[in-house]
Amino acid sequence: MKRAGILNVTGYAGAELARLLHAHPDIELAAVTGRSAAGKRLPDVFPHLWQIDLPIAESLEDVSVDVVLSALPHGAAAEQLLPHIERGVPVIDLSADFRLKRVDEYEASYKVTHPAPHLLQRAVFGLPELHRGEIAGAKLVAVPGCHATGVILALAPAFAAGLIEPDVVADTKTGLSGAGRALALAVHFPEADESVAPYGLDGHRHLPEMTQELGSLAEAPAPEITFVPHYIPMTRGILSTCYARARGRLAAMSAAEARVELRRAYDAFYADAPFVRVSDGAPSTKHVMGTNDAIVHPSVDLRSGRVVVACAIDNLGKGAAGAAVQCLNLMLGLPETAGLRQMALFP
Amino acid sequence: MKRAGILNVTGYAGAELARLLHAHPDIELAAVTGRSAAGKRLPDVFPHLWQIDLPIAESLEDVSVDVVLSALPHGAAAEQLLPHIERGVPVIDLSADFRLKRVDEYEASYKVTHPAPHLLQRAVFGLPELHRGEIAGAKLVAVPGCHATGVILALAPAFAAGLIEPDVVADTKTGLSGAGRALALAVHFPEADESVAPYGLDGHRHLPEMTQELGSLAEAPAPEITFVPHYIPMTRGILSTCYARARGRLAAMSAAEARVELRRAYDAFYADAPFVRVSDGAPSTKHVMGTNDAIVHPSVDLRSGRVVVACAIDNLGKGAAGAAVQCLNLMLGLPETAGLRQMALFP
Amino acid sequence: MKRAGILNVTGYAGAELARLLHAHPDIELAAVTGRSAAGKRLPDVFPHLWQIDLPIAESLEDVSVDVVLSALPHGAAAEQLLPHIERGVPVIDLSADFRLKRVDEYEASYKVTHPAPHLLQRAVFGLPELHRGEIAGAKLVAVPGCHATGVILALAPAFAAGLIEPDVVADTKTGLSGAGRALALAVHFPEADESVAPYGLDGHRHLPEMTQELGSLAEAPAPEITFVPHYIPMTRGILSTCYARARGRLAAMSAAEARVELRRAYDAFYADAPFVRVSDGAPSTKHVMGTNDAIVHPSVDLRSGRVVVACAIDNLGKGAAGAAVQCLNLMLGLPETAGLRQMALFP
Amino acid sequence: MKRAGILNVTGYAGAELARLLHAHPDIELAAVTGRSAAGKRLPDVFPHLWQIDLPIAESLEDVSVDVVLSALPHGAAAEQLLPHIERGVPVIDLSADFRLKRVDEYEASYKVTHPAPHLLQRAVFGLPELHRGEIAGAKLVAVPGCHATGVILALAPAFAAGLIEPDVVADTKTGLSGAGRALALAVHFPEADESVAPYGLDGHRHLPEMTQELGSLAEAPAPEITFVPHYIPMTRGILSTCYARARGRLAAMSAAEARVELRRAYDAFYADAPFVRVSDGAPSTKHVMGTNDAIVHPSVDLRSGRVVVACAIDNLGKGAAGAAVQCLNLMLGLPETAGLRQMALFP
Repeated sequence: MKRAGILNVTGYAGAELARLLHAHPDIELAAVTGRSAAGKRLPDVFPHLWQIDLPIAESLEDVSVDVVLSALPHGAAAEQLLPHIERGVPVIDLSADFRLKRVDEYEASYKVTHPAPHLLQRAVFGLPELHRGEIAGAKLVAVPGCHATGVILALAPAFAAGLIEPDVVADTKTGLSGAGRALALAVHFPEADESVAPYGLDGHRHLPEMTQELGSLAEAPAPEITFVPHYIPMTRGILSTCYARARGRLAAMSAAEARVELRRAYDAFYADAPFVRVSDGAPSTKHVMGTNDAIVHPSVDLRSGRVVVACAIDNLGKGAAGAAVQCLNLMLGLPETAGLRQMALFP
Repeated sequence: MKRAGILNVTGYAGAELARLLHAHPDIELAAVTGRSAAGKRLPDVFPHLWQIDLPIAESLEDVSVDVVLSALPHGAAAEQLLPHIERGVPVIDLSADFRLKRVDEYEASYKVTHPAPHLLQRAVFGLPELHRGEIAGAKLVAVPGCHATGVILALAPAFAAGLIEPDVVADTKTGLSGAGRALALAVHFPEADESVAPYGLDGHRHLPEMTQELGSLAEAPAPEITFVPHYIPMTRGILSTCYARARGRLAAMSAAEARVELRRAYDAFYADAPFVRVSDGAPSTKHVMGTNDAIVHPSVDLRSGRVVVACAIDNLGKGAAGAAVQCLNLMLGLPETAGLRQMALFP
Repeated sequence: MKRAGILNVTGYAGAELARLLHAHPDIELAAVTGRSAAGKRLPDVFPHLWQIDLPIAESLEDVSVDVVLSALPHGAAAEQLLPHIERGVPVIDLSADFRLKRVDEYEASYKVTHPAPHLLQRAVFGLPELHRGEIAGAKLVAVPGCHATGVILALAPAFAAGLIEPDVVADTKTGLSGAGRALALAVHFPEADESVAPYGLDGHRHLPEMTQELGSLAEAPAPEITFVPHYIPMTRGILSTCYARARGRLAAMSAAEARVELRRAYDAFYADAPFVRVSDGAPSTKHVMGTNDAIVHPSVDLRSGRVVVACAIDNLGKGAAGAAVQCLNLMLGLPETAGLRQMALFP
Repeated sequence: MKRAGILNVTGYAGAELARLLHAHPDIELAAVTGRSAAGKRLPDVFPHLWQIDLPIAESLEDVSVDVVLSALPHGAAAEQLLPHIERGVPVIDLSADFRLKRVDEYEASYKVTHPAPHLLQRAVFGLPELHRGEIAGAKLVAVPGCHATGVILALAPAFAAGLIEPDVVADTKTGLSGAGRALALAVHFPEADESVAPYGLDGHRHLPEMTQELGSLAEAPAPEITFVPHYIPMTRGILSTCYARARGRLAAMSAAEARVELRRAYDAFYADAPFVRVSDGAPSTKHVMGTNDAIVHPSVDLRSGRVVVACAIDNLGKGAAGAAVQCLNLMLGLPETAGLRQMALFP
């Protein structure tokens, strides 16, 4: 049994981490921290975590752990993780602090000075479908943003195979747990219920991650992504619908042929990815609720010939805590799927 | 007072027509028909329509009316409307039967032989924002499909001003009343709730309308639209998010300048449209619930320079029954907004 | 046209008042106030009220109005209404400040000192179904709490006819707009969605109103009500399910006979109430959404012989703003249904 | 590993059984049947069960299993289970066929002739909190109805300790998965969404189970329960709110004292029940979503002195498939909590 600690257990990602790690066969959840709730016990804050009767500590300093997972917000995460990193403890960060390679991109997006820019090159982007080997050897892993995960999983095989033009539209639909536990009018039930709206039209912070990761794959020039997220009146799930012009040999085919070719590329790309299912039909977020799975459906529009890929994930699963546990498994030499095999809660 | 009759009042569009016409200051709802429910009274089928104590008839043949509105499905609509059209009664059809000018497009999309192709050229597309004058003089008006209304309203000003390339992505999110009252697993609460999924990936029937109408506006070549609708766990509302590359002078501007220029084009295009509001912020479907309004928000993505336009309507309002009443007003010489001025039910 | 002013338009009840008064044929909405939003215009706070381009003022002092409606919270309401009352302006208060006749009941429930206890006897309880005549002659009317309205409408006919024992269970289910616009974890979408929970188990403030009003009707001893409200994952609507033992002649009948007898009492009681429908089937809150209607379904349990009455209202309609407008109509000598005839938005 | 077979896997309870048994450490799910879907594979019907690549068979006849679980509807269940029972295979039935001891009660409620009334006395009511020992030794166990489970768990300790009068109101609120997968207008999203309504006002079939089980516990005369279920716009969960007059020594206490005394009785009654939590605060169905847990909150109304007990379960968990697995564990000599320890999916 390896011992894990969670920084900032009191948000939704933190709570989901606790739930997953408690059920993990090879992990003992040793300690958790939280800012405002320090001093309480975990079930006082989250009654559904009644089996985890841990105190909420102020820090992990006095606890010996084999791995630290942070669900702190950006800025705070890098700061509080630094001592653990320096001590050589494997660290998994769910914030944006170590996702981007370029500190200028980070500082432009997040409007803060990065507290530890020297670590950016050492950090590994925590998407095993792209970086499995590196994650296995890493001491510092940055779990991608939930929108980024969906969009990258949707497009990576097509970019990697040079099958689409770099000019991409990514239209995502997210459940409201994606907005976090902090109170806000946009997440107030009477205003969010029965309504759909785009947000982030002036630029969303997850975009640079998408560009960085898809750009490292493409044979084509750097991706140019127009990314618009939408709030949907549900709790969990992100559906990412991505659009791009076919390129190269795909562009020369009929739409029907292109569908087959595209599917082949996706099947190949994800052949060894235990959590990604390439599907025949349109994916539904409900089919991944509560899991670390992604359903990816590549298609070609029969009229326009445009490539359309839809990807469904649980924003708190594969989009956050599930991905973190998957990285943890790789980093600690455990089976990649340990603790992550549950099927979706349906209906 | 003009007398109106409704064909097939027993679906959601028919019921909404009844609700609107009952409250209309210049209209008397004289008779309604329904297939399976014939013989019952309207409130037996729809308790919320308790003030409209009309019998549900088999046909409107014996009733003298000044206008007929049909909420019949395609195919049945044209057939049952023919006698009224031949008698010279003004007719408003909510089905697809008279929307398309080209019978081959219709028959390819709807897989039926058109019962009255000779009427297609006489029919007017019932979107007053594009065809106000023609509707005012028409005897046969075809109300657009709900997805088509949203997408056309989102893109018409940009196409008309030559500000976007014809290669367009239209990603729409619709509430489940859009799927109608017929029972289906996709609309079964436990399966639809807490889930988002695309549908119609093999082609949606509303696409030809969009192409026809936007194509008649564009200075550019014919629009090439990739259209993907999505089911959203809510009852009413469609949000259409549309993406296109800037063109001509817009493409030469900075994104900030392009936003101003684009907004100017939208303000001008909708200057006389009483139901369209060009908005500063992202539109939310809840802000139009129960109305005939459309909120259109044109924007330019600051990173990619791509034009992004979002449009919110109520699929049963401006997307169906509201639009029908707006056309009725124009056809009968009534004020365009008569009976349609209610503001959204919020929250 | 009479001129109306609204105090505290910035909550849900205030916004609904504005929506209803704007559409009212005999009322001009002259001015609105709001605390934090003073200085803005109404559509800046509530985009759905785009047709009401009024500034949000700090007070109504400089405005001449024929009636003042207050959506202020308790305590603040009485204080700010006092000058208007003293000036003789008709006043309609949606808070609890003038609902209870006994100041000790008020102060025990609301934990504040009443700023104007001398007015309690002059104030009329704003439920026209019980107090139509008094309201018509009143200068100060207190609109009941939303739960109280549902429970009183459900039980008043049975109490008035002496058909039930005073020992009553009232189990209510309310949409979350009932919790108001102030942010709270219980109304945070991810926590409220897909969940039902009771609240107020230590006593809910609407109880004394129910006891006062039903107690004034009963032939039996004072009602003893156990009242438990529940939050439901929807926005609008309250369903009140009320249970009591049959009494007197009803207790001597078979359940089938008792159903007929009970129904007769309800039909008679509500014969002149334009907004109450006594229904044959179980009521659904969706059938009253957006209206001032109440659907009341009296029944007798076939096994236990117990009386069960279910009542559906829109908590912001008949439960708040609709009731206020109904009272306004009576106070100003307008038709009781003026501005309130719209049918429910369904589906 | 014991081998289990499921009859009728194609409804929601059947699918949840499959999900739970697949994850069960001591069970191998050997075969599943389904009526209309026979011939397909399980993931074709339920994509979320992608890890269970079993064919859907017509029957279990040719399969050797250690236990049979039936999610067939009543009538069909008894018929198809008979051969397995006669062969001596342990059987767990989720239908009503073996819940009631009195065949006349069954036939009056279900309007069918019981195919095997001789088995009723042998069958054990599958609520381990009341019948743990009997279930452990049983070959035929009948899992209670979901409403019955909630109401019995809410009231059993109070009845067993003689603390409440037998005259009880049980008001339950159920998510719509409780209505099953068969299509119906009451479960059609646009009609069910944003609405609450009672149903079964002429008598609900789960009532006799409640009476039978609580009656076997009570020191008082037979319970007389008025039971009214309500549909709630959510997918999973039942909240049961139960009301009864205090009795005996409880009736003589102050409300505050009675709360303590009542709580003591509940703590004692559930001391050995691993899935029942007696809670300090009001329970929320979201806190048990996806689990076999029940949260029970006993209280005493401070004004009326009436006992109010609220109980939250997942209708597909403790209300159906979870309870079945709990019984299976006991019947097969496995740890009672095997395969059932997951905590709720929250938010």
